[in-house]
Amino acid sequence: MTFDQWTRQVLDRVESALDHYLPAADVLPAPLHDAMRYAVMGGGKRVRPLLCHAAGELTNARPEALDAAACALEMIHVYSLVHDDMPCMDDDDMRRGKPTVHVKYDEPTALLVGDALQSQAFVTLTSDVPGLSDSASRQASLVRELALASGSVGMAGGQAIDLASVGHSLTREQLETMHRLKTGALLRASVRMGALAGETPSAESLAALDKYAAAVGLAFQVVDDILDVTADSATLGKTAGKDAKDGKPTYVSIIGLDASRALAQQLRADAHAALEPFGARAQRLAELADLVVNRVS
Amino acid sequence: MTFDQWTRQVLDRVESALDHYLPAADVLPAPLHDAMRYAVMGGGKRVRPLLCHAAGELTNARPEALDAAACALEMIHVYSLVHDDMPCMDDDDMRRGKPTVHVKYDEPTALLVGDALQSQAFVTLTSDVPGLSDSASRQASLVRELALASGSVGMAGGQAIDLASVGHSLTREQLETMHRLKTGALLRASVRMGALAGETPSAESLAALDKYAAAVGLAFQVVDDILDVTADSATLGKTAGKDAKDGKPTYVSIIGLDASRALAQQLRADAHAALEPFGARAQRLAELADLVVNRVS
Repeated sequence: MTFDQWTRQVLDRVESALDHYLPAADVLPAPLHDAMRYAVMGGGKRVRPLLCHAAGELTNARPEALDAAACALEMIHVYSLVHDDMPCMDDDDMRRGKPTVHVKYDEPTALLVGDALQSQAFVTLTSDVPGLSDSASRQASLVRELALASGSVGMAGGQAIDLASVGHSLTREQLETMHRLKTGALLRASVRMGALAGETPSAESLAALDKYAAAVGLAFQVVDDILDVTADSATLGKTAGKDAKDGKPTYVSIIGLDASRALAQQLRADAHAALEPFGARAQRLAELADLVVNRVS
Repeated sequence: MTFDQWTRQVLDRVESALDHYLPAADVLPAPLHDAMRYAVMGGGKRVRPLLCHAAGELTNARPEALDAAACALEMIHVYSLVHDDMPCMDDDDMRRGKPTVHVKYDEPTALLVGDALQSQAFVTLTSDVPGLSDSASRQASLVRELALASGSVGMAGGQAIDLASVGHSLTREQLETMHRLKTGALLRASVRMGALAGETPSAESLAALDKYAAAVGLAFQVVDDILDVTADSATLGKTAGKDAKDGKPTYVSIIGLDASRALAQQLRADAHAALEPFGARAQRLAELADLVVNRVS
């Protein structure tokens, strides 16, 4: 199977699974469920679900278990986008090529959509799923990974640092800390949860995967910063040039465009190196590192 | 032990446990953790923790397990208050007798405090706790109870219905549906999680507890509506008369003050009746039903 065929297969599975794990649009309260589906369905690169499925190949995780973990990760990711786009945060009108939730609906709905998507992620992880509900310890460890990665020492904490940094100059180390929490934590959880959804991985395997995820997570952000200044809004599906306009510190603003591009390639190599112990079984993870670095949107 | 002594003992335990399960105020990002602690510590009636501990007496749950479940419930409750008080929702300045989080800090902080408290609740349930971490199936069932009660078919869904109802006249049935989700779901989860934190309760026991929780949950809201028109802001620790001013439908506005008082007493009797199968072991739950109905703030 080519990488393109593999990603298409995974994306199809995940899209069906999201449809399954989100309450139907006619379940009460229907307007909230409609807005949750608007936020989640049919958009985004689904990087976290892809990482989760790719990591699951290392531990023979059941596809159904990976679908549930992938959906939980994507729900957390989307909730963070919905809240991040709100007027009191980044105040953005476009996301994934369509109006943001508070623009399409209203602010209270955007707040509740985010809140409810976070809960739904944990409902999903504890659903009746082959490979998960037959192993309560697997369920509990996935819940813990996701909760830690989402919370104040993970994604939400990174957003707090991000907000506090607007208009301030950060050192490269401070910028890295911020991104390690804001986007890195959930990307790392994507890889770990994929592996944890199968046969219990060794401590060494998890450490190697952490190294891989750290490199990919940072590369993801460096490329985001590059695209913010080199791509247009239509390609990105969100407002381009926004970080510079908002006075947000970025890799491009701190080390420049060329050095940022070189850094992204270095991180790609680091990611590949971290996967060496797994051999050919890590093929999809290696290809995903390439995808993250070479993407154009 | 008198009921007063029992509640004091539980509240002391829960306060220490909240201090334990919330990240310290000097852990990075310190401003976010400071704000999370401001929102949670030293305030509120802690009704959900009390219900959880009282229900745990029926199944010999370990106190440490009940502390963790109680903290998770309180974190979810507080996150909902913090978000509910934000300008785009109820826009309230006072809560638990002090400035609300967005007033004391700012709006983005309030948004992130709520988001991170929700995650922290699930971190707490999957922590290393005697009586919980030795039973992954207990952890998973508590996670599922809490996630379902918090999300779009529980608390967040109830808030969506509440927002949509402002300025509209509701029937008594519609008002009940709203409250069953908005406050009832988490109160029900408090009772169920207490019971589930111990020896697995029978389906009959859980059904009886659901009946009890439904009566107490509704009574809680009816009394809230009564206090909104009869108590002053200083006693309530939040703005009195706000529902009437905001055009929110309440029990008092729909059936009147006297009928609301009679209804609260009827629900108290219903709650006591539901506990009959448990005999003397349900003493604390019975006393809590009285507390909910007879409270003055």
